[in-house]
Amino acid sequence: MSSSWGTYLRISIFGESHGPSVGVVMGGLPSGVPLDLEEVREFMRRRAPGRSRHATARKEADAPQIQSGIYQGKTTGTPLCAIIENADTRSTDYESLAALPRPGHADYTGWLRYAGAADPRGGGHFSGRLTAPLCFAGAVAIQLLRRRDIRVGAHIYSLMGVEDSPFDPVNLDPGLFIEIARRDFPVLDQERGNRMQQAIDKARESMDSVGGVIECGATGFPAGIGSPMFDGLENRVASLIFGIPAVRGVEFGAGFQCAGMPGSSHNDPWQMRDGRVTSPTNHHGGILGGISSGMPILFRAAVKPTPSIARPQDTVDLRAGRDSVVEIHGRHDPCILPRAVPCVEAAAALALADSLLEGDGYHGFSGTAR
Amino acid sequence: MSSSWGTYLRISIFGESHGPSVGVVMGGLPSGVPLDLEEVREFMRRRAPGRSRHATARKEADAPQIQSGIYQGKTTGTPLCAIIENADTRSTDYESLAALPRPGHADYTGWLRYAGAADPRGGGHFSGRLTAPLCFAGAVAIQLLRRRDIRVGAHIYSLMGVEDSPFDPVNLDPGLFIEIARRDFPVLDQERGNRMQQAIDKARESMDSVGGVIECGATGFPAGIGSPMFDGLENRVASLIFGIPAVRGVEFGAGFQCAGMPGSSHNDPWQMRDGRVTSPTNHHGGILGGISSGMPILFRAAVKPTPSIARPQDTVDLRAGRDSVVEIHGRHDPCILPRAVPCVEAAAALALADSLLEGDGYHGFSGTAR
Amino acid sequence: MSSSWGTYLRISIFGESHGPSVGVVMGGLPSGVPLDLEEVREFMRRRAPGRSRHATARKEADAPQIQSGIYQGKTTGTPLCAIIENADTRSTDYESLAALPRPGHADYTGWLRYAGAADPRGGGHFSGRLTAPLCFAGAVAIQLLRRRDIRVGAHIYSLMGVEDSPFDPVNLDPGLFIEIARRDFPVLDQERGNRMQQAIDKARESMDSVGGVIECGATGFPAGIGSPMFDGLENRVASLIFGIPAVRGVEFGAGFQCAGMPGSSHNDPWQMRDGRVTSPTNHHGGILGGISSGMPILFRAAVKPTPSIARPQDTVDLRAGRDSVVEIHGRHDPCILPRAVPCVEAAAALALADSLLEGDGYHGFSGTAR
Amino acid sequence: MSSSWGTYLRISIFGESHGPSVGVVMGGLPSGVPLDLEEVREFMRRRAPGRSRHATARKEADAPQIQSGIYQGKTTGTPLCAIIENADTRSTDYESLAALPRPGHADYTGWLRYAGAADPRGGGHFSGRLTAPLCFAGAVAIQLLRRRDIRVGAHIYSLMGVEDSPFDPVNLDPGLFIEIARRDFPVLDQERGNRMQQAIDKARESMDSVGGVIECGATGFPAGIGSPMFDGLENRVASLIFGIPAVRGVEFGAGFQCAGMPGSSHNDPWQMRDGRVTSPTNHHGGILGGISSGMPILFRAAVKPTPSIARPQDTVDLRAGRDSVVEIHGRHDPCILPRAVPCVEAAAALALADSLLEGDGYHGFSGTAR
Repeated sequence: MSSSWGTYLRISIFGESHGPSVGVVMGGLPSGVPLDLEEVREFMRRRAPGRSRHATARKEADAPQIQSGIYQGKTTGTPLCAIIENADTRSTDYESLAALPRPGHADYTGWLRYAGAADPRGGGHFSGRLTAPLCFAGAVAIQLLRRRDIRVGAHIYSLMGVEDSPFDPVNLDPGLFIEIARRDFPVLDQERGNRMQQAIDKARESMDSVGGVIECGATGFPAGIGSPMFDGLENRVASLIFGIPAVRGVEFGAGFQCAGMPGSSHNDPWQMRDGRVTSPTNHHGGILGGISSGMPILFRAAVKPTPSIARPQDTVDLRAGRDSVVEIHGRHDPCILPRAVPCVEAAAALALADSLLEGDGYHGFSGTAR
Repeated sequence: MSSSWGTYLRISIFGESHGPSVGVVMGGLPSGVPLDLEEVREFMRRRAPGRSRHATARKEADAPQIQSGIYQGKTTGTPLCAIIENADTRSTDYESLAALPRPGHADYTGWLRYAGAADPRGGGHFSGRLTAPLCFAGAVAIQLLRRRDIRVGAHIYSLMGVEDSPFDPVNLDPGLFIEIARRDFPVLDQERGNRMQQAIDKARESMDSVGGVIECGATGFPAGIGSPMFDGLENRVASLIFGIPAVRGVEFGAGFQCAGMPGSSHNDPWQMRDGRVTSPTNHHGGILGGISSGMPILFRAAVKPTPSIARPQDTVDLRAGRDSVVEIHGRHDPCILPRAVPCVEAAAALALADSLLEGDGYHGFSGTAR
Repeated sequence: MSSSWGTYLRISIFGESHGPSVGVVMGGLPSGVPLDLEEVREFMRRRAPGRSRHATARKEADAPQIQSGIYQGKTTGTPLCAIIENADTRSTDYESLAALPRPGHADYTGWLRYAGAADPRGGGHFSGRLTAPLCFAGAVAIQLLRRRDIRVGAHIYSLMGVEDSPFDPVNLDPGLFIEIARRDFPVLDQERGNRMQQAIDKARESMDSVGGVIECGATGFPAGIGSPMFDGLENRVASLIFGIPAVRGVEFGAGFQCAGMPGSSHNDPWQMRDGRVTSPTNHHGGILGGISSGMPILFRAAVKPTPSIARPQDTVDLRAGRDSVVEIHGRHDPCILPRAVPCVEAAAALALADSLLEGDGYHGFSGTAR
Repeated sequence: MSSSWGTYLRISIFGESHGPSVGVVMGGLPSGVPLDLEEVREFMRRRAPGRSRHATARKEADAPQIQSGIYQGKTTGTPLCAIIENADTRSTDYESLAALPRPGHADYTGWLRYAGAADPRGGGHFSGRLTAPLCFAGAVAIQLLRRRDIRVGAHIYSLMGVEDSPFDPVNLDPGLFIEIARRDFPVLDQERGNRMQQAIDKARESMDSVGGVIECGATGFPAGIGSPMFDGLENRVASLIFGIPAVRGVEFGAGFQCAGMPGSSHNDPWQMRDGRVTSPTNHHGGILGGISSGMPILFRAAVKPTPSIARPQDTVDLRAGRDSVVEIHGRHDPCILPRAVPCVEAAAALALADSLLEGDGYHGFSGTAR
């Protein structure tokens, strides 16, 4: 459904980078859930540009304006709409580029898909700016999940060959999520983070950009949620995560490493500990057959290097039908990973909340009803 | 929607490993399309057990019985149902295991999800047997796509450290797909294939199993099909591919490698060649912003090692609530990758056909496009 | 989604009148619910032809064959598929009619929709025979609902000007549903039923047919289930009921009569009785704003006269492109209302179960889980 | 999906009567379609209050503010969002009523559904105000349809026993739609319209209200669009029309009258006229088996009398748990039918556009059709 997603908790995202606003409609929310909007804004600030020296200089308030769905500080249960006005948009940066598709961007494919009618300014609906309403929705989902003691967090797992410490797959401490969220650069090991930042600085200096991998975890998610085949937790998470522009791969648990592991190592043995079924390893990333096992949910997403780089790049002139060169001006992060971290958290929270609502229904989810 | 998938071309899969049959209902098929059922059966044989020395000894005819949707050799356009009877099912192999969840399987999570009511025999609805109707549906989609000169093929990309030659990302020859499909062991480089088979043989000897990575490509897919955000080609392919049991990761184009590439390398420069827009590289895997670029579509899926291994494994007794040991008898492939290759092709063909049907809608409506 | 319906409880119906079988896949069922298959067959017999002197002479066992989804007498929670073999199909009755669309049938529109490729035998997928799997699914839903003390029943409300006693909209006794289900001719007032049967006999004698109106009620449905706008109980019931061939209208509560009522009469005053909110009238048919009020749910469906009549009728020859005459041979009920009554009950039960599952989730519905 | 609707052309409506705004997100629009926004506003004025002496005195600009999806006067093909600010909202009119559910309103059922958390002011999300974004979306759909020479129109068919002239079911002149749209009171026969207005005036004088029936027609809709069973034109139209608050019944073609017609009268004979298949009658309302026949599409919707009447009415005090009396102050139309007429047109246009977009898909895919 293009820019809509979800069956039980649903989001419908709209907007173009340089239009009046971007926003989201959320449907299927349980009613009577208190929402801390200051916390929502705080979450969105982690995605906003201009936070650290690595982010674009474009400043935006990014304050969501609630249009509906909240009354007296609680969810009404009817659709919640928030819009985020676009400010500080310098369209002249982009207008001349309409016929010169930027390599690595969706300019060319979008031009074909929409027969030249899409808004070309700033990438239009393809812009990373559309992750602002995604983060709004995710911040709401995070607050829903916390009512059930479910926590979600992410960090930069690797970047140009530098690897952060991974999340502990068995004893994942949700306190880490709070710590990472406070940091300017979202890693566990700050020394590794410094090396990553050096790689980013180096890319900026050479008018280049870098990509990386984000690891995301969730704790407290109850066992027995999800479904086999096409409606499993992996399918839902992946179908949402690939909606974040620049994500090129998703893996759960041991992921692609399972290709080099024998079954005797990859299989996680079950054991009873304190009356609960668990395992000393978690190569399954908390999901087996699409269904949660009660262990931490773990996945990783590969994020490509920012396609907007300052160097002249070969392209074609779509109107003239000949080879050309494009130079991208304007303000662009050499690395979007710090800002992509909350986007991944948001997507994970939405996917988990959607699955949880399926299991519990709108009456069962929050416990405020009935 | 659990075991249903698709918006324009839809599949609904049913069945348990040891029930009367497994099958699929396909909806949204265009009418009047001739179907070569012998070719469908030929495709399904690639997935069927007992094909090579690496496959399980369990023999099945796996002949799909058409219940509806085909008349005089052509699709009617109304729902097509095919069932595949389950034969040679030795339930005694499994019955005693119901309370002893096999490590790496969905036994434990399925037991929770369905409150102990799911059919435990042979994995029930979680069984790899459910890929038989998926392959049926995929074989139908492959014939639809071929009417538009779109071809789909896959091979084992890597297995326990042995890497096959990759598909050429720019000049991918669909003739290769035919060649691979004919081989007992689906690789491009047969010498590498021999080494992979040695690794499989070694795993069998040590009562172990191995996983690997499958690469899938599609040629001839028209440019401008797909959508941004949540309904892109990546989202659709991934949401379907993760429905194949054992898939743990999906990546498009350069995928996780993009984490180590600078933007200046990862960006694919555009150029005009013979009046068409193309690129000398294809790190984007034929998809940008969820939309096809006209270049070959390329993705890879990580497949975990077969969880059923003959060694005794630690587990719990769910009824007694204590630690236990499980020994899996019966017949199990030490490596499912050769049989998973057509499953990945099937899923890719379904996702592409679904997107193409949607595209004929939005491109056809107003006449402004195309 | 063509022949699929539902969000939480889902059905996917397949089959053609003269193909190997018709059937249904049900998804989203709660697990562990005991199913009385003999009761299902009993329900289906009410729809089956050959039950009374008014029904077609075509005899069918109509015994559903369970393919999946039931294990040890209970729902597994994974897709339930049942097929019903087609027997006693005399295709020669129909083959010659393919180019002569029968007035009042979907022959002409189906021929256009499917470009002549649809199975023309016996109406193919448009046949009333497709209500057999609908009734199967409805019979399952009825057993789900009964676990929550919800009962569904219907009767012929009017037929060629003869009106049955209506259901009591306030104190509807579900015991009536059982009585009606046992009768050969499903009315409350048997004297009125006799007059209806005379009208049917008269139509048969004059090689004609008659339509009528069916009233359906549900008791015990909890208050507060449903949603405003497009996902209300009316929307769901209507979207399903219009899937029964021959239904031409649906109205809830006072329905079309509300056009002649002042608001002061149509509004149902609220009152407290024994600690519960109720009303001495029920013009709202148990639904306000798409949501149940706790009062009996009541709606009516208009069923057109059987289009297959024995008289020669004017039509066109689609191949020759000229006016022609068609004579319909074979066996046809002059009135399908007795057989349509369980179909309406089935559709109502499915719509209510779908809405109830949305409210409660799969874990909450049956209480067997968690 | 609660306040979302549609598969190919999708709408997601949000807002509460007294919140900041109401609005709609439209997805799946074809790109490059010019939109005349002044015409959209003109259409919306027909729904707006304060147009004639029969409408509420509450005045609103109701000017939709485009947030996204239109660039340089054309649809971009990405989601179109419009919001309509709520002005002149006097919340004090409603606040005291929160615990006193108004008879005939969704106050009581909404209170249960949302556990008391829904916005009670002015009916919140249940308000008739939500038809403003529906009309916006419908006005866009009407412009899409006109590019294919499809026209939609409606009029008041009956009101308190006064019947307007019906649409000609065979030779329906779309020019009539334009005439009706210009009139303050949307009927064909102005003398009958005067009598209807007298009935409304009389209801106002007696502090009462009246309901009625709206007839809607569409011309130029191509034959062969739609599907059997659950995705037919009737199902789609009905599932959307029941989303208009106050609609209690929907019937197609002869509708409920078919209950008193023999098949020999109800069947529409086919004939060739000028190389086209048509019929001298159109009891099927342009739809057979869910699929369009090429004849005018005709349906009627029953609209209940305005539940808000000035007389004191019996109700309960939900907080105190005892009988009570409610008096509704504020401004309310004694008859909403004139304003409901464009709402029905809007819903019809959306349902037809959704089906048409789907049809361009299945007809375009294989090239065998059309």
